Amino acid sequence: MDRFDAHRAIARSLDTDAIALVPGANFARVMGADFATSERPTLIVIPVEGAPAAIMPNLELASFAQLGFDGNVFDWRDQAGYDDAFAALAAHVPLTSLAVEGQSMRVFVHHALKRAYPDLSIIDGERAISGLRLRKTDDEIAKIARAIEISEAALGDVLDAVCIGMTEREIESRLIAAQFAHGATGMAFSPIVAANTNSAMPHAHARDYAVQAGDALLIDFGAMYDGLCADITRTVFVDHADDHAREVYDTVLRANIAGIDATRAGVTAHVIDDTVQSVLEASPWPERIRTKTGHGLGRQVHEEPYIMRGNEQQMEAGMVYTCEPGLYDMELFGVRIEDDVLVTDEGSKVLTSFPKELQVVG
Amino acid sequence: MDRFDAHRAIARSLDTDAIALVPGANFARVMGADFATSERPTLIVIPVEGAPAAIMPNLELASFAQLGFDGNVFDWRDQAGYDDAFAALAAHVPLTSLAVEGQSMRVFVHHALKRAYPDLSIIDGERAISGLRLRKTDDEIAKIARAIEISEAALGDVLDAVCIGMTEREIESRLIAAQFAHGATGMAFSPIVAANTNSAMPHAHARDYAVQAGDALLIDFGAMYDGLCADITRTVFVDHADDHAREVYDTVLRANIAGIDATRAGVTAHVIDDTVQSVLEASPWPERIRTKTGHGLGRQVHEEPYIMRGNEQQMEAGMVYTCEPGLYDMELFGVRIEDDVLVTDEGSKVLTSFPKELQVVG
Repeated sequence: MDRFDAHRAIARSLDTDAIALVPGANFARVMGADFATSERPTLIVIPVEGAPAAIMPNLELASFAQLGFDGNVFDWRDQAGYDDAFAALAAHVPLTSLAVEGQSMRVFVHHALKRAYPDLSIIDGERAISGLRLRKTDDEIAKIARAIEISEAALGDVLDAVCIGMTEREIESRLIAAQFAHGATGMAFSPIVAANTNSAMPHAHARDYAVQAGDALLIDFGAMYDGLCADITRTVFVDHADDHAREVYDTVLRANIAGIDATRAGVTAHVIDDTVQSVLEASPWPERIRTKTGHGLGRQVHEEPYIMRGNEQQMEAGMVYTCEPGLYDMELFGVRIEDDVLVTDEGSKVLTSFPKELQVVG
Repeated sequence: MDRFDAHRAIARSLDTDAIALVPGANFARVMGADFATSERPTLIVIPVEGAPAAIMPNLELASFAQLGFDGNVFDWRDQAGYDDAFAALAAHVPLTSLAVEGQSMRVFVHHALKRAYPDLSIIDGERAISGLRLRKTDDEIAKIARAIEISEAALGDVLDAVCIGMTEREIESRLIAAQFAHGATGMAFSPIVAANTNSAMPHAHARDYAVQAGDALLIDFGAMYDGLCADITRTVFVDHADDHAREVYDTVLRANIAGIDATRAGVTAHVIDDTVQSVLEASPWPERIRTKTGHGLGRQVHEEPYIMRGNEQQMEAGMVYTCEPGLYDMELFGVRIEDDVLVTDEGSKVLTSFPKELQVVG
């Protein structure tokens, strides 16, 4: 038994000779520390039989040695390049097929592998490898909860400060500073701060637009804490919300709550999304639907399970996902309400606790 | 003439039918805004002849439309997946060869391209494509300068606060918060805050270690401002520095200055590194050398030109690189002094201005 047993089992199930891991979420989970995704190839290879091996930039050897890796390490220096290290790997670890993380490994590493192993069949094992992260450990859940706590404290500070005339960029800057002031170790992603029609773009970029009375203001962001992510969205209104805004908001909130209420171990991702979309579709604004319900959340801000119709994957206790329905009208405004939801055997536990009633700020 | 002319010229010079760009530095530079690197394939294809085309997640269409892209856009939704969009691209833009950014494109996009174009030859055009970013524009230089200004203000705050007993993690948290408080829009990379023997690891992770009198304290970090990076290292000493520390520090500082003095348009990267390494090699501690002089700096914190022996690339006016010699003794401590240097026709302009004389803090 060692930390790579689950990876060996995946290699067997995919009928490949080995699994390769590059820096990122899967690497961090099994090694206990992440390494930079840089111009320097860094790779762990876990064969079905025999010891694992690694390709490591020489200047990372000391850091890597602290992680207790029990296998051959082939290092290389910038001056000489990395092809010799890949050739040494090929000499020590013969492979005909290799499952890699398709969402993380970059083409230059794929090419270096093919130069060292010309006949190597490289398959995308992302789903199975990242599948090891589907059910969160207690430690991971505690860190997600801490990331949420930090995020919500920051959001509270920022909403207290918003006033008419403040620009999206100013609000974004305050939000970023507030997260770190409250203890974030990073950001899960670059925040979305979008007012007025900009709020109708699911992935808007902050502008110099100054918020005005009556604007919707959508804030979608999340702190990172020790490698784990939060992801929360609230949509508030500046100065006042008109009746139409209130009706749209109420619809999105009902969809959000319906999704949460439908959650428990054993239901499929399809069922949760179908429940959420049905609420939105029954509203007067079905044409404003633009996204699925949400996605898994953990070491990556977007990961499996994807909560969408057609995904028959069963929810399992320990999964965490985002329930984030929205309605978007490019001529008017968008509303999104996003919570982070832990799946339990009995149902669910909503990890986010920021108020969801319609809020007027400024 | 349009914004993709340079890309077409590269495709011709590489003897490929087209260039592909994925979100990241090259995409941001030519499109004026970056898109997230996510689980959703997002791609621009620029053929030598004819209009460009894009593969875009449906929910990004509105944001992408703002960028004024004059070509076919094939969008796709999560529920249906992206293979149809790639097939539509293949039907509209026949290709037999494609140059991609090997350091940015991930394997799942490579695989999607190969499913749509089974006979496509995919080559790594990273060097040529990213080569368009070698010489910085005035606007880019101004943003790097602003990122440095923010970084140095943050470093000043943190060094004023450091005292015996503060942990590496506490110092790191303060450094992160200070960067955003001073106006950073992001961080160029996760900071390195490393005291005592940890300072001898080029890419150390912060620990709960509390700094003690006599410790070296190495801080390597950089703010991001509007997509452009700073990268600065200073090594200070806590409470006092002994004679050995002062001698090592003086050697590294002389190497740093020698590298800067050797810089001007027309010299090779080899010559700069050779100048720097020669100072270190002539010291009593040549075995403590572990890294090359530095790397280019811009939209990415590590980019070309790499300042190392054997790289006969000529420096050009408008390039920005890091001059960051160091000496590292795993049993004692490491010292690194890093400045950001703009190459000019006459010589160089050092963009960093934080004092380099040995500093004692706490």
